Amino acid sequence: MTVLDDMRAAIGPAAVLTDAADRVRYEQGARYDSGTCLAVLRPADTHEVATCVAIAARHQMRIVPQGANTGLVGGSTPDGSGGELVLSLQRLKGFALDLDNASATVGAGMLLSELNGRLAGEGLFFPIDLGADPSVGGMVATNTGGARFLRHGDVRANVMGLTAVLPDGQVLRLGAGLRKDNTGPDWKQLLIGTSGAFGIVTEAELHLSPLPRETAVALLVPAAPEAVLPLLREAERRFGALLSAFEGMSREAVCAALAHVPSLRDPFAPGPVPDYAILIEIARSSAAAPGEAGLDDLLQAVLSDLIEAEPGLLADARFGRPEHGWALRHALSEGVKAAGRLIAFDLGFRRGDTMRFCAQMREELARTHPEVSVCDFGHIGDGGVHFNLVVPPGSACATDPAAEAALRARIVEVAVRDFGGSFSAEHGIGRRNQKFHDIYADPALRRLSKAILETLGGARLGAARFD
Amino acid sequence: MTVLDDMRAAIGPAAVLTDAADRVRYEQGARYDSGTCLAVLRPADTHEVATCVAIAARHQMRIVPQGANTGLVGGSTPDGSGGELVLSLQRLKGFALDLDNASATVGAGMLLSELNGRLAGEGLFFPIDLGADPSVGGMVATNTGGARFLRHGDVRANVMGLTAVLPDGQVLRLGAGLRKDNTGPDWKQLLIGTSGAFGIVTEAELHLSPLPRETAVALLVPAAPEAVLPLLREAERRFGALLSAFEGMSREAVCAALAHVPSLRDPFAPGPVPDYAILIEIARSSAAAPGEAGLDDLLQAVLSDLIEAEPGLLADARFGRPEHGWALRHALSEGVKAAGRLIAFDLGFRRGDTMRFCAQMREELARTHPEVSVCDFGHIGDGGVHFNLVVPPGSACATDPAAEAALRARIVEVAVRDFGGSFSAEHGIGRRNQKFHDIYADPALRRLSKAILETLGGARLGAARFD
Repeated sequence: MTVLDDMRAAIGPAAVLTDAADRVRYEQGARYDSGTCLAVLRPADTHEVATCVAIAARHQMRIVPQGANTGLVGGSTPDGSGGELVLSLQRLKGFALDLDNASATVGAGMLLSELNGRLAGEGLFFPIDLGADPSVGGMVATNTGGARFLRHGDVRANVMGLTAVLPDGQVLRLGAGLRKDNTGPDWKQLLIGTSGAFGIVTEAELHLSPLPRETAVALLVPAAPEAVLPLLREAERRFGALLSAFEGMSREAVCAALAHVPSLRDPFAPGPVPDYAILIEIARSSAAAPGEAGLDDLLQAVLSDLIEAEPGLLADARFGRPEHGWALRHALSEGVKAAGRLIAFDLGFRRGDTMRFCAQMREELARTHPEVSVCDFGHIGDGGVHFNLVVPPGSACATDPAAEAALRARIVEVAVRDFGGSFSAEHGIGRRNQKFHDIYADPALRRLSKAILETLGGARLGAARFD
Repeated sequence: MTVLDDMRAAIGPAAVLTDAADRVRYEQGARYDSGTCLAVLRPADTHEVATCVAIAARHQMRIVPQGANTGLVGGSTPDGSGGELVLSLQRLKGFALDLDNASATVGAGMLLSELNGRLAGEGLFFPIDLGADPSVGGMVATNTGGARFLRHGDVRANVMGLTAVLPDGQVLRLGAGLRKDNTGPDWKQLLIGTSGAFGIVTEAELHLSPLPRETAVALLVPAAPEAVLPLLREAERRFGALLSAFEGMSREAVCAALAHVPSLRDPFAPGPVPDYAILIEIARSSAAAPGEAGLDDLLQAVLSDLIEAEPGLLADARFGRPEHGWALRHALSEGVKAAGRLIAFDLGFRRGDTMRFCAQMREELARTHPEVSVCDFGHIGDGGVHFNLVVPPGSACATDPAAEAALRARIVEVAVRDFGGSFSAEHGIGRRNQKFHDIYADPALRRLSKAILETLGGARLGAARFD
């Protein structure tokens, strides 16, 4: 019996896709990365996932789990060997709501949009805010962060329970939806953020938050790059738990979005686009008390006071409908991509280092790569920076893979070695970041990964390798 | 050279306490548990801790790390063998504040009160709210929760970096203060909540929160036990992120506190103490906007509306100064302890199960142990219950250790087996819960612990054993 015969016998022939035409949408990443797989497996439930994993282990084949395949680091696509199996979790759509527990147990294949659609009627949501529409399993596998991290934390902080299939096909249930359980380490955290390497998450119990009832947004123009961090601290001090986003955007990124996304209005017109702008959002899920000021008024009052009380911080503030501010913020990615050949980084820093890194790296690139345009934006409130380079056609970095690789290596080196930052703030490891993991990961932790994988049944799951 | 000679040579003779009189306060737990150690080691910094651990490993001796020794499960006291070494972290008092990062790097020996004292001037605090005054290292080792968990999460969610000494004496630094870092599993989480078994935490970088500027508290009398959970959901819906505590108190626990803590006023007088009461707190760190209602008014308005709109939920609400409400809540523990011989449990449940468990167990105990008085209270907003039994002198459970052990085993059995709960919601494992860990821990996870401990250098740290 071949591995495919075994798989067909276990989950039915219709759930094992081998035709090239059927496979192709599972083999191609959302933006980068593609490969070829032997087959795409589409099991229906945790039990079938476990069966597939056990069969693959017996045949010594690698399985790459895949949710909505929206990742940007090749964490859910097969390699070029043609010898891997993609295991799609799309059919795992279970949903059980526990209102008393403020939690829902959700299948790995459910999309974030589907989940929030089901929760909206109850006044709840899963507060991970992303440009893409990933599956629950994909969010857990990468520990996605997004734009409301500073209010709600990452996926890690919002997972109360997991069901996972270990590399040997064993099923492990963890957490049981308890908020307080101090009977050992939090084993769930070994499975979150590892692209499925230690186990394929088939179901997660998620902590739910009350939907915001009122939101106000402004675009801030800091007086200087050095004012961005002091502005963040003032915003935290003055808005407290109301603060739900503090997102930075360079002029180059904003201009790229305005140039390439026709539906956008320029919020700074008729003036020029400022060197740097910040989208600030405050939100509350509670009802306004009788006679209480709305959040728009509160935002305007606090920002006006800030302009008067702290000269040198805030040069300007533009108010408007929240959806217009977010339309600009969410268009940055598309705009930058359309502006030319993109070399993108997803970096994490201590918050005080984000602006310093960007300034220092811009200066270095102006000397070493003057043809490159820096279009950075990111989650300044959490130290995350999407440091994007747009490279003109014909330049060395666009035509010579070695030149591009050297540029990538240099930027990661400065971020990790000089600034103590992370080469992957929220996108995960995948295949794209494997080389940086292999350079920078602590040897003691790699030994630990190896021992854990051996105990769990081997290193045959996922696109990334931690051992 | 004996182990003590080696220790004296490494950290100086004054830092190695062997006299019985010097040792005794390190050998006696805060409430329960005591033992005898060969010596108390008092290293001055991470490097000295590492040296001590390496020496102990060479001599094959067990080290029990100790912070402020305030735990209730024997996690920081030696056993009765006299062969263990207590390693006190009291001298590790480092403190470095990073205001831009909203974080502080703090030595394991700093007390929570000292830490918050240093932060208050900056308008910040570490939001773990406990009756005791533990050290930072102790809080990390147990992953303490406390009364503001539902607003701020547990220690786990607020640790951004760790320095730890592994069982072989190697020093590991994790996290580096980054909020977003998805380059693998969150290894910090293996060290948090394990009583030091996988490594002794010598320093932690903690996420800091803005201090509340305004707080309002009320004592709620639910119309029936079944109304408690619906009240919680209404409170979450109506107060959103303002809700900072939702604590339940049984009549028996309140009466014990009123009887034994003379400084308390009875907030329900001249009426009777209700069967069950809830302390609700709302708080905000942001400034009130001009013309905005105070939180006292908001609390009263919302609760009045609730009484009108949702009959059958709320029978009464008593308003007062927050410190009076909290004085009662914090006196429960002392009151219950003074009421008689105490058999205490620290249980965690899905939130919908807390009241059901207490009701079912009370019913069973009324049949099997009618002499026992149930004085439960707890963190209803997080599913935590301090299920306390007060046992009269002379009864079987007070005089016969086997009878007490059988009662303990039965209650844990119902909580864990029948309700899927946790036998330690926030106190950790320590020595007290070892037997329950050995019964209920997942065999796959115990194998994993064993493999991890072998890789890290063996199982010779801490009072609890996970392998």
